[in-house]
Amino acid sequence: MDGLSTDVELTDVQGGWDDRQLAIDKVGVKDIRYPIVVKDRREGIQHTIASVNMYVNLPHQFKGTHMSRFLEVLAEHKRAISVESLPELLRHIQQRLSAEEAHIELQFPYFIRKEAPVSKAAAMMDYQVRFVAGMRGDRFHMTLGVVVPVTTLCPCSKEISERGAHNQRSHVAVDVRFKQFVWIEEVIEWVEKNASCELYPVLKRPDEKAVTEKAYDNPRFVEDMVRGVAADLLADPRIRWFRVTSENFESIHNHSAYALIERDKEGRTSCAFPAV
Amino acid sequence: MDGLSTDVELTDVQGGWDDRQLAIDKVGVKDIRYPIVVKDRREGIQHTIASVNMYVNLPHQFKGTHMSRFLEVLAEHKRAISVESLPELLRHIQQRLSAEEAHIELQFPYFIRKEAPVSKAAAMMDYQVRFVAGMRGDRFHMTLGVVVPVTTLCPCSKEISERGAHNQRSHVAVDVRFKQFVWIEEVIEWVEKNASCELYPVLKRPDEKAVTEKAYDNPRFVEDMVRGVAADLLADPRIRWFRVTSENFESIHNHSAYALIERDKEGRTSCAFPAV
Amino acid sequence: MDGLSTDVELTDVQGGWDDRQLAIDKVGVKDIRYPIVVKDRREGIQHTIASVNMYVNLPHQFKGTHMSRFLEVLAEHKRAISVESLPELLRHIQQRLSAEEAHIELQFPYFIRKEAPVSKAAAMMDYQVRFVAGMRGDRFHMTLGVVVPVTTLCPCSKEISERGAHNQRSHVAVDVRFKQFVWIEEVIEWVEKNASCELYPVLKRPDEKAVTEKAYDNPRFVEDMVRGVAADLLADPRIRWFRVTSENFESIHNHSAYALIERDKEGRTSCAFPAV
Amino acid sequence: MDGLSTDVELTDVQGGWDDRQLAIDKVGVKDIRYPIVVKDRREGIQHTIASVNMYVNLPHQFKGTHMSRFLEVLAEHKRAISVESLPELLRHIQQRLSAEEAHIELQFPYFIRKEAPVSKAAAMMDYQVRFVAGMRGDRFHMTLGVVVPVTTLCPCSKEISERGAHNQRSHVAVDVRFKQFVWIEEVIEWVEKNASCELYPVLKRPDEKAVTEKAYDNPRFVEDMVRGVAADLLADPRIRWFRVTSENFESIHNHSAYALIERDKEGRTSCAFPAV
Repeated sequence: MDGLSTDVELTDVQGGWDDRQLAIDKVGVKDIRYPIVVKDRREGIQHTIASVNMYVNLPHQFKGTHMSRFLEVLAEHKRAISVESLPELLRHIQQRLSAEEAHIELQFPYFIRKEAPVSKAAAMMDYQVRFVAGMRGDRFHMTLGVVVPVTTLCPCSKEISERGAHNQRSHVAVDVRFKQFVWIEEVIEWVEKNASCELYPVLKRPDEKAVTEKAYDNPRFVEDMVRGVAADLLADPRIRWFRVTSENFESIHNHSAYALIERDKEGRTSCAFPAV
Repeated sequence: MDGLSTDVELTDVQGGWDDRQLAIDKVGVKDIRYPIVVKDRREGIQHTIASVNMYVNLPHQFKGTHMSRFLEVLAEHKRAISVESLPELLRHIQQRLSAEEAHIELQFPYFIRKEAPVSKAAAMMDYQVRFVAGMRGDRFHMTLGVVVPVTTLCPCSKEISERGAHNQRSHVAVDVRFKQFVWIEEVIEWVEKNASCELYPVLKRPDEKAVTEKAYDNPRFVEDMVRGVAADLLADPRIRWFRVTSENFESIHNHSAYALIERDKEGRTSCAFPAV
Repeated sequence: MDGLSTDVELTDVQGGWDDRQLAIDKVGVKDIRYPIVVKDRREGIQHTIASVNMYVNLPHQFKGTHMSRFLEVLAEHKRAISVESLPELLRHIQQRLSAEEAHIELQFPYFIRKEAPVSKAAAMMDYQVRFVAGMRGDRFHMTLGVVVPVTTLCPCSKEISERGAHNQRSHVAVDVRFKQFVWIEEVIEWVEKNASCELYPVLKRPDEKAVTEKAYDNPRFVEDMVRGVAADLLADPRIRWFRVTSENFESIHNHSAYALIERDKEGRTSCAFPAV
Repeated sequence: MDGLSTDVELTDVQGGWDDRQLAIDKVGVKDIRYPIVVKDRREGIQHTIASVNMYVNLPHQFKGTHMSRFLEVLAEHKRAISVESLPELLRHIQQRLSAEEAHIELQFPYFIRKEAPVSKAAAMMDYQVRFVAGMRGDRFHMTLGVVVPVTTLCPCSKEISERGAHNQRSHVAVDVRFKQFVWIEEVIEWVEKNASCELYPVLKRPDEKAVTEKAYDNPRFVEDMVRGVAADLLADPRIRWFRVTSENFESIHNHSAYALIERDKEGRTSCAFPAV
């Protein structure tokens, strides 16, 4: 609702007319921090804090949108956020904002309990997750993004050196669009299995030996990292489109190595290189 | 515990001897993201995500510290984090790390449900909170920090202009050390009552009118902002030391205005200006 | 050159064969900080510091790329960086990396001397500029991006309030692709003329009065901000494609208002809403 | 000067009286980006971009300070910024702002041309430098800070593993106060000689072999990193006070290892642990 009876005296400036003939693709609120509950494959749910952006389209004749309604929709949404609940949240935005298109972006840390490989000592480890979703009329689309930190060890350094091999932490970011549900945990698994080694919050000495040797035995260029994940995503029939990037925070340089593969399995135009 | 029986073969390099005669002030782990539960004055508790640093001191004869134990302490801590629970957490670190001094820093968003001034439309709003605590032997110290975003409106702009007055969002950061317990909410109240106006997540038109006029009626230089809060902190007998800063993200410049007041009520040496 | 005679013993692991049949869209180096010289409409050139990313494509049969060559190309580039010099730099990358496609992204602060409107007191003010360019064979493309900070004042707040109107700093980001050369300064002018008021580094009292009243007389919703700039970009025949966003750091909320307009004047597929 | 003749009509609100009896420790402008020239040991000077904060103290009876004057002082300062020129700049701030104390903080990237150890292939590499200086009456103080990125390799991992050893990039931050001039380059050398290996912008294969083996032969815990640098700083009679920290972006964890040593050679009170 739009406030109290004094409202009748307060002009709705946003609701007025605009005559520049310019529709706006997205308008709304950005960088709201909000506590949310998300679905968790193992625990059912987990509590986290999201950074939220919410937008609608604005046809050319309208002067502005009613920003406060976005916050009200967010405050009213009681269900745990998940791929299944997002269409309802977007429909709610469409209705409250009287809009044809609604968009939402939620970025949040997601925690998984990880056990060290030998000692099984355990603690929580965080992964950055992003849900980007939209509804145009009844058509829903969503992109799931996960940033997975891993260890990568350099094949060249290993090959040419008599001892040791430089390695570093890498951030592998995977964005996927899918026909059937994909868990956040599955995306994480696709990345961790292709790395030199995965990360662990707690490592006792037998674990440290194990991960050091495993990384040494599984060297990966940044090119190998993205190719390994891309091959797995290509092979899974649920995935329609993906983009994989790996950023290695090189231990021997003050800059990163980086690689990107993007594929649209259904043959639509990729935006990777704009037409000249 | 330090792992499995194979441990007997794996040298404890960190436990070895160092002969450089150099004690280390702080050593440990930094930038761990972890889900925590904190005490909440209204709700009892709230879930949030903290960025955590944990350190101990290291006497000169020891080569290194056992980093994994910090994570284990964090994973085992089940109670809600609060000023009351921090001494126990620090003692736990002292014991597990066999250290004389233990330090912890937790930084997290803290949410309060705020109602708009006229319409009472409500949603959650976030404040950045920081607990910095340490234990040396049995001596406990703690600093509570809160960053409170507010509206400030410029007195000069109001005075010299025929219409309007520039205003902006400001971040007021308050750090306090106290003799008796102080709620996060109290620190927020000290800041919000001294601002041109406080912020609200949801504002309907009657609210927008109210906050616009209130800010106009209560102009504050960045100097007024810190003086107002400092006066309140000086007057409260529980506060032993404080530092207040205000950073105004000026709407008319591409830089900020900034002010700082720091006072130690018990007369100890302030570190504000180092001796030459 | 690839090093010394001992090179013959050091395996070129990156130059080896890969059989996964996966071409890589972009591979290279990211987040290099480097001093550069850029063309300046008034001064001829200015010195600044850029954050640089450089990539090439990698056909499926090659295992990896030779990262060090990117740094060598950057270190050798002596000319001032400009729209005119970028094709040569990209050709150089194509040759040194033996690649079909070369990409470069440079992000840097760009300074303009601004005089206050009444007193003419002057100093430098910074704008964030980004050059994103690529070469595929002989085909060159480039996107020029500029983030222009301005003042925006809310029309609704002005209309419904008896005194004052909330205002704030906004960041207007414009990305353009063009058929004929466009100066960074022109993009800045398109934004500043459409704002409630532009920013100035130095403001004496007569200037502060002038900008306060000017902003009050020119209220702009975030929707007006993007529509105003979009209209000017649509009208300029040199511009083929553009994206304009405005992010207002609201003085009355702890989040931002945001709007986006994107137009491809030549009718190619916009990537704004992915096909479902 | 404070503007034009119309100034006589525009109230100097900042110049007015305040009766709360609260002096302000620091007030001024923050986060100004400005092009500067700094002294360079090899080249004489280099151009860079600084983030600048400038403050003065404000006695209790004054309402506010005249912010625009800070920008004017910065715009007028033509000499290359260096330890030698800072006292003049601070005196200029004291005079223009009619203040007893003036403070300045400049943070900027500083570039050094580095040659790879075997091939001598060269390019520029950046280090983050910070000058923090103040003048109280005639008393000048300054702190020089440099963040030096290096490679560190873990002694424990090397000792207990049959092959390989985890390593990562580390950021070693050194802050020093000195009796006689110290070059930025000297601080960098103190850090780089104590690391497992220093970083290089360009590495051809013989260089990559050399740095991989060097790091392997020189394992360093985060504790060793700070102890090594601290020993060198203690030994240099020009250094009066220092703080060294090392942050290792662990390749096997999603958090950092961290250590800190702070020493005041002249025995003044350290602020490391606040009195309870």
